[in-house]
Formats: sequence, C-alpha cells, structure tokens
Amino acid sequence: MSPLRRFPRIFSVGPELLKPNSLAKVPTADLFTKLGFFTHPKPGLVHWLPLGTSVLDKLTSIIHRHMRNSGAEEVRMSALSPAALWQQTGRWTGTELFKLHDSSGSEYCLAATCEEDITAVAAAQIASYKSLPLLYYQINTKFRDEKRPRAGLLRGREFIMKDAYSFDVSPEAAMESYEEMVAAYHRVFSELRVPYVKAEASTGDIGGSLSHEWQYVHPSGEDTLFRCTGCDAVLNVEKTLSFPAEDPANGKAGGPVSVEYFVTDDKNTLVCAYFLSDRTLLPNLLQDEVPEIDLKCGLTQDQILALFSGEDALLSKNVIRVMDLRLHSRSNFPDFPIKFVSRALITTLTDIPIVEAVHGEICGQCSEGVLESSRAIEVGHTFYLGEKYSKPLQCTVSVPGNDGTLETVNAFMGCYGIGVSRLIAAIGEINRDLMGFRWPACIAPWSATVINASTDFSKSERVVSELHDAGVDVRCDDREGLGLGRKIKETKLVGIPLVVIVGKNFPIVEVEIRGKKYNDLWKSLFAQDSEGWEVEYLEDGTSDIKHKVHIERLGSVVASLLKDM
Amino acid sequence: MSPLRRFPRIFSVGPELLKPNSLAKVPTADLFTKLGFFTHPKPGLVHWLPLGTSVLDKLTSIIHRHMRNSGAEEVRMSALSPAALWQQTGRWTGTELFKLHDSSGSEYCLAATCEEDITAVAAAQIASYKSLPLLYYQINTKFRDEKRPRAGLLRGREFIMKDAYSFDVSPEAAMESYEEMVAAYHRVFSELRVPYVKAEASTGDIGGSLSHEWQYVHPSGEDTLFRCTGCDAVLNVEKTLSFPAEDPANGKAGGPVSVEYFVTDDKNTLVCAYFLSDRTLLPNLLQDEVPEIDLKCGLTQDQILALFSGEDALLSKNVIRVMDLRLHSRSNFPDFPIKFVSRALITTLTDIPIVEAVHGEICGQCSEGVLESSRAIEVGHTFYLGEKYSKPLQCTVSVPGNDGTLETVNAFMGCYGIGVSRLIAAIGEINRDLMGFRWPACIAPWSATVINASTDFSKSERVVSELHDAGVDVRCDDREGLGLGRKIKETKLVGIPLVVIVGKNFPIVEVEIRGKKYNDLWKSLFAQDSEGWEVEYLEDGTSDIKHKVHIERLGSVVASLLKDM
Repeated sequence: MSPLRRFPRIFSVGPELLKPNSLAKVPTADLFTKLGFFTHPKPGLVHWLPLGTSVLDKLTSIIHRHMRNSGAEEVRMSALSPAALWQQTGRWTGTELFKLHDSSGSEYCLAATCEEDITAVAAAQIASYKSLPLLYYQINTKFRDEKRPRAGLLRGREFIMKDAYSFDVSPEAAMESYEEMVAAYHRVFSELRVPYVKAEASTGDIGGSLSHEWQYVHPSGEDTLFRCTGCDAVLNVEKTLSFPAEDPANGKAGGPVSVEYFVTDDKNTLVCAYFLSDRTLLPNLLQDEVPEIDLKCGLTQDQILALFSGEDALLSKNVIRVMDLRLHSRSNFPDFPIKFVSRALITTLTDIPIVEAVHGEICGQCSEGVLESSRAIEVGHTFYLGEKYSKPLQCTVSVPGNDGTLETVNAFMGCYGIGVSRLIAAIGEINRDLMGFRWPACIAPWSATVINASTDFSKSERVVSELHDAGVDVRCDDREGLGLGRKIKETKLVGIPLVVIVGKNFPIVEVEIRGKKYNDLWKSLFAQDSEGWEVEYLEDGTSDIKHKVHIERLGSVVASLLKDM
Repeated sequence: MSPLRRFPRIFSVGPELLKPNSLAKVPTADLFTKLGFFTHPKPGLVHWLPLGTSVLDKLTSIIHRHMRNSGAEEVRMSALSPAALWQQTGRWTGTELFKLHDSSGSEYCLAATCEEDITAVAAAQIASYKSLPLLYYQINTKFRDEKRPRAGLLRGREFIMKDAYSFDVSPEAAMESYEEMVAAYHRVFSELRVPYVKAEASTGDIGGSLSHEWQYVHPSGEDTLFRCTGCDAVLNVEKTLSFPAEDPANGKAGGPVSVEYFVTDDKNTLVCAYFLSDRTLLPNLLQDEVPEIDLKCGLTQDQILALFSGEDALLSKNVIRVMDLRLHSRSNFPDFPIKFVSRALITTLTDIPIVEAVHGEICGQCSEGVLESSRAIEVGHTFYLGEKYSKPLQCTVSVPGNDGTLETVNAFMGCYGIGVSRLIAAIGEINRDLMGFRWPACIAPWSATVINASTDFSKSERVVSELHDAGVDVRCDDREGLGLGRKIKETKLVGIPLVVIVGKNFPIVEVEIRGKKYNDLWKSLFAQDSEGWEVEYLEDGTSDIKHKVHIERLGSVVASLLKDM
C-alpha cells in the first residue's frame, strides 16, 4: 500500500476550527460535515464519507455481534414495499411514506419500517409451532418523507436502523423473546460506554401494548423523561402519571381552565377534557380513561362541537367530562358550549391525571416519590406487538391444543429498533467538548494516531507496526508540511482516543489521552510492572493524561488504555 | 445460546426436492427460493433470508478486504439522488430510473449507479492535486426499473453492487488507479475460485473510452464472448472485429443483403449500412467508422429516410454507404430508396467489419487466430471514464503548470463495479449439480454441518467445539425426528462444503466432501503425519471423497480441507 493511501485522503480541517474557542459556537451537526464524517446532498439525506463510514462500520459490528449472540438471524429486506401490505394494516395513509410507482404501475413505498413485510415473509415460512421462536433482524437504510428534516442525523429522510422482529406461539413466549432482546440491548448500550436509560414508553404508531425507549439523557434531546426518586421508575412524559406536589384544594385556587374536545370512534360521545391552562394535555392519558376516543379523527374543535349542536343531537348522544386532578370545585371552568343539554346525559370523571407532569410533582405510580424531569435523545425502542400485524396479515401458526388436535393461532410478535445513524449523532453530541469529538474507543474512526515529531521515518514505522501487532487500529499522520501542534489538534478534533507522539526521546514514546475515560484497567498492568512506563496526571492528581512508554511495552500499554475509554 | 437457536429456524426442504433426480428440472432461481436463500415479494425485488444473507455477508467481507488493501476508502451514498445532477449529465431520461417526489416537490431517482453523486461529492472535497488520487467505494443496494425482471438475482429491480470511483490529476495517473482496481478484481475473483475471464467491452451508457467486463463463461449467460486462438484476446461480442473464415470473393456468392439506415447528430448525413441478411449488424462497430452517428435518435427507418426524401433535400445533404467486408460486388444489394440522388454526394466505404462475429471466423485484432464463441455471465465491469462526468459536474483540481502557476483541470475518473447479488446467482448456477448447490468454502452459508448419528449428544458437542476452536464456521443439525440420510441430503442440497458425521466409530469422525475441490493442500499435511487419518477415494482413485479422522486431529484436517474448496 502506498504511504499516501494510509491516511484518509480528505482530511482538510478548515483553519476556522483550529482557533482557540472556535468550537463553542459550532453545532455538532456542522462539526460532522465540516470534518468530513458525512455530507448532506439535500436536507435529511446523507452521503457517508470515509470518517463516518468507519464509525458506522464499527458500530454495526457491535450490534451484529450482540444480535447473533442472542440468537437473532440476519435478513435484508427489500427497500421497496408494496402498497397492498400497508393497506391491509391500515398504515398506507397517515405515516410519512415516500411513495412511488414502477413502470408497470404498481405502487410501493420506500421501507420506513418492516412490520408489514417481515410479517408477510414469516406468514409464508412458518409451518408449525416447531418453526418458532423466530427472531429476524437487519441493519439497513430506512426512509421517511420528513417534512422538516433536522440538520445532521437526528431527524433525517433516510436513516440507518437495526430492526428486529420476533414471532412466538403465545404471549408468554413472546415476552421471553422480548426479554432476550432487552438483554441484548443492555449489552449493546453497555459496550458503547455512554450512560443510557430504559424508559417506559407509549406505543404510538407502531402499536402493541408494551414498549420501552432506550434513551441518552442530554439537554439537546427532543424527548422528556421523568425519573421517580421513590420507585426509580423511568418514564417517557407520555407515560408519566403525576399528582400535584400539594393538594389543589389547599393550594392557590387554580388559574384559568382550558378545555379540549374529543369524539369517540362511533361519533356518539363528546369527551370534554378540562385542565389548568398553564399545563399541557396528554391525549393518550385521556385515552387510558376513555379508550374509545378517536385521537386521529382529524376534526377541528369546532367540527367536533358541530356534531353535537343540532336540535336533537344530544337526545341520542352522550357527554363525558374529564377533570384533571389538579382542578377543584373552585376552579374557573369555561362555559359549556352546547345549549339545551340534559344533565342526565353527562357523565363527569374527576381526579384523573391527564396532563404532562412537571418537574417536582409526585409520581403517579408509587404516589410517594418526586418526579425529576430531564431531556433525552431516543436511540432505541422495543415493542411488544402481540397480534397487531399477525392478525391482518394472517401470520398464523398451528399449535397442539388441549385435546391433541392442532389449532391455528396468530403469531405473537415483538419488534425492536436501534437508530444506528441516530446513535452516532447522539454520541457525537454527548461526548464532544471544546476540543472536538471524543469517540468511545470501540466506535472511533480509528483508535490511535501516530505522529512523527522527528525526521526519522523509520521510528514511526516501528511504532505503527508494534501497535498493529497489538491489534490496535492505528493510523499514521505522515502528511508533509504540517507542524506537530496542528496534527495533534486535528486528531483531537476528530476525536481519536489516543495520540502517540514519536519524538526525540525515542525509544520512549508519548501517549496522550484524548478519549473519555470510563475506568482504569491500565492500573493493574502498571502495578504488576512499571518498568519503562511513566504516567503524568492532571494537576489535581485524579486522572492520567499522558503515558511515556518504552517501545517494547507500547502495544500492551496502548491496548489496555483503549479498554478504559 | 439455546440449542434451538443454533440452526437456522426455517430450514424446511420440501420433500419434492429430496427425491432422486428431482433437481434436474428445477431452475437455479427456484432452488434459491425453495431452500430459503431469499424470496421475491414482487418480480425483481428481494428479501434476503438468513441462508442468503450469510452468503452475502461472506462475499462482501472478501470484497471489502480487497478494496481496503488496494487503498480504496469506504463511503455510503444516499439512496435518493437529486434529479438536477442527472439532468446535468444528460442521463435523467433514457435510463430505467425509479423516480419519485418528496413532500416538498423535489424530484429524485433511486440511485441506479453513483457517478453523478460521487462526482458532486468529490468536486466539493478536492482542494488541490494534493487531495488526489482519491478512490472511494461502497457496497449497497442499487435500483433499476427493469421492465422485464428475470427470476432470481440476475436481472432485478434492486441489486447489491460494489461500486468504486477513482479521481486523478491526469489520464496517466487515472490509468494507474485503473490498473490498481484491475489487480484488486483479480484478487477478488481468484479468491472465489470460480474460473473467470476479463474481456474487452464497449462502454455503453456509462461512457468513457476503455472498459473491461469480468465474466463467468457459462451456457446460461446472456452475454457472448469471443476468445482468439491466436492472440488470446477475450472480447465481448460488441467489441469483436471479425473477418470471414474464407475470402468472400472466392466463397459462394453471398445471399440476400440487408440495409439499415442511420442519421448523424446534425441530421445532415444519411448512413446506409449494408450486410448479409443472415448476420446481425453491430451499430457500435459502425459508429467506430462514422463517429457522428446518433445511435439514440429514436427515429424509425421510414422517419430517417423521410429526412432525406424532400425535392431539395439531397442538395445540401450527404450519403455514406458502409459495406460489411463480407459483401462483394456480386452481392444482391437492395435498391437505393431515394430518387434523384446525385452520385457526387455519395461516399462508399467498403471492407468494414460491421456485424457480430460468429464462431470460427478470423480475429480482427491479429488477423490470424480463430474466434471461439462462448456464453458468459457478467459479474463485474471496470471503466476508464476520463472527463465524462467531471466536466459537466465541474469536478476540477488545481495542478502546478509548467511555469509554476496553478492551472485548473478536470479530474480524470474511473469507475469499477461488481454485481454482488449477481455473483451469488452466477456462482450458484455454475457450481450446482444434481444434488444441489456447491458453494466455494469462502462464501458458503457455513463451512461444515455436524450431524449426530449416535444418541450421545456430548459427542457432537465435542466435535462442534473442536471445529469451532480451529476457526471453522460450523453448524450442528440437531433437529429431532429426522433421519441421518435426510440430514445429509439436506446439507448437500444447501451446498455446505463438508458433512461431518459423528457415529458409532467415535472418536473417529467421518468427513464427507461435498464442495468442489480446487487443489489438494491436505495432501502435504497427510504426508507429514497420517496417524488417525484415513482417506477414501473415488473408484477411479483420482479424488478424495471421505476422510475418517480422529477427533484430536479433526480441527486441523477440516481446516486444511476447506482451503481446498
């Protein structure tokens, strides 16, 4: 290989990024593109360039390994998904699908998720209960015609996802598959080192009855989580039941009250939700109380009221009033908008929590702990789907019944996503500092940059070869005409965990720590034998920042340092 | 891992495939789907299932390795390609693109190939000649709205491709990159073991001035190749110049003569191509003689003639008559269809080879050897593109000129494709026999199937662990209720190279050869030490078919056998 090929060819860091304090104002999404991790040909679309592809490859290797170890089998589904399947499950309209026709007029969408396709595949494959459990996964590009794509990878029109799907004979067996995937998720996220939480979540468009989000707590996140100081529950705001911190009856008489109107699927019942005007209604909490509510009816408030405003309308129809538990009899309720309503037709439900919790309120699950809120970035989601897709797509399985004859039941499914490109954006954001990115060693574009500060090329060759033999993914910055300081700044900016400087003290080589440290495994190695190995600490003595290591020991020392970060 | 998870869950071979001689009538495309390598949700679309995904993963690993070793850097381009780029290069119409709009009205195609996008990316990245050479590659799904998709993977609407693109400062440097990729292709195709040829090819829609196809010679192929017995040239039919095996003047006076009409880009010259009616005209050979011919004018023969049939038409226009060299003065030429033509305006070119060669004719390159024809399956294509894309997309680079000042030149490009899914279809087709598939060990779904013929589960566990320790990708067929014979048939049908049978002679284990053998590396190991190792040969003694090996030696023997196949 020619030496010229050894370093990514495009590695031109604009001088504006190298000035002191210049990074403070650069959003992470811009830092990615300025450094050449990827570019956006159009908002929401991504061309991954060598630096980014390297991170992506390492991350997908980790996910592949944990998926395989948990028994999942890899598939690779078509990117084009026939409209008919989505029509059968009722998802053809409403979701942000990219739609297209082929030359024969058939209609497709670009796969946004694969519940439909994988269920159809499984339906054709599953012969009997002996074929189950079945656990398929893939890592590939998904598409969503996002109206307002965000810069970077967090909300794109194409994104790389790991999606897995389980098929089982019973809800109990399906929950075993669910727990198996949950365990695999813990292994994946632990290996990535970035602290994460698993939060109870609502099931949203995907459906099903149980779901968890895998979140990175970070102020830039779009999601709001609550953790209860009492029962330790972690919940997405949409799943957080909350009680006010003080009894409303004793508190200041509440401020203005708002009302929102909903209608049931059969259009026969008007549901009026009352809550304090300075709070935000959570329709899915309302739906937990009145399951027949149609949250997707698409009608405006006036259109809903019009359904109930005819002369005779309210003779055959009902009204349910739901009062958030923060209201009390002295609250300032708005007037009821429909005249001639008979009080006999009105049901009133009080003391129901139907608004978003706020920091400091009481946990609705344990009624004791205090809810602490934080922002978070969602990077994974696991769902128990039950029969939601297997029923319309007739994915059935024969199982022996009690009397020995075979009976046919719908498969019980789960689905499990990890936002792979999202993870990279999130980790980039969370781990960066004023010097640039700081990748966990396991997904860094490479692990150590060797920089030659001497004029003797053979020394850095030797260092590269020692590190290579120790299994370290190393690159040598042998660009000509650039100073040592500039090269060190650049590798730190890109976020490579270690900088290895080959200078006048050779065969002693300097190893500078750039990566975030998660533990200190190297210390036990050092305790065994510190010959030819000196450590410099931070001024406060808490943390090692530089290691001076004899070339003979370099490989093992660097390998052990990398395990720490 | 639960033992149930160890074997692909869906492995139900229909009994019709296990009957004697039942495979003879099963097309390879059907064999793939019946065995569960993949399924087609619609013609031309593919869902890869675990068996197929495993082959795909192994093949892509090999390609990745050789691409990296040749200095190529991995990228991953967006699947959606903006219409504007294709309009700039003139390829928006004419090619079979899947087109779609996003919600904001912007128009895209699904990437069918990436010359446009990668050139735009490079144009934004290349600062100066110091950024070059640049060699990018990716392996991902491409799309083509194929009107008549073939069953299987050979002509699909989505296909997996490795595509690489090189950017250089000069034609000479670009040819160095071209040769580097050619060398990498030789390494990839050699590793796959299936004999291949590199043929001179025409550049077609991609353009450029030099190209080679990488072909598997096989009767099922769609392409025709000629090899010259004299100069050893291997050429696609479209590039094959040929002379008749005997002098036409001495031969039988030719049969009927056909004529086809063409027009030049400027519509001022009518080109009449004359050739024997039982031969096939090759318009690109005609174009080599008259480069201005517009092969894509889209006009019918009558429409072309109408351009030249007006009263005054032929006053300002020209006629070129091109005679294939198989014609002579006594040939039965058709009447010239246009009246009042002045002979002064007609140019006649004779002795030009403009038809497809046939088997047994003389090579037009060396004028001596005989052309032998064969059918072939194209699995790769390398192109020297020159400035075809860099010019319209302004991918320029500053280079120091003779006087030391910088001048701006277009980058010189090459592009290099391997049809990854096509390769799998082709190797499946070429290597199969009446027992099923026979995968080269390097891309087999797994390398050896362990089948337990005893009731003692611990023995097969031991065998699996020995093989695993020797680095063999092994699976244990521990399905209950299936006989030994059935299991052996199934693993051979799927095409796994080795069957390892654990029976009553344990610790002696039987290793049956299923894969195609390419050499006999095991013999040197055997010659060193044959203790605990017996070999059974074919009746004619030529080839080993079964090895009886003591468990202690099993790992090394199996590993060495796999290197042979």
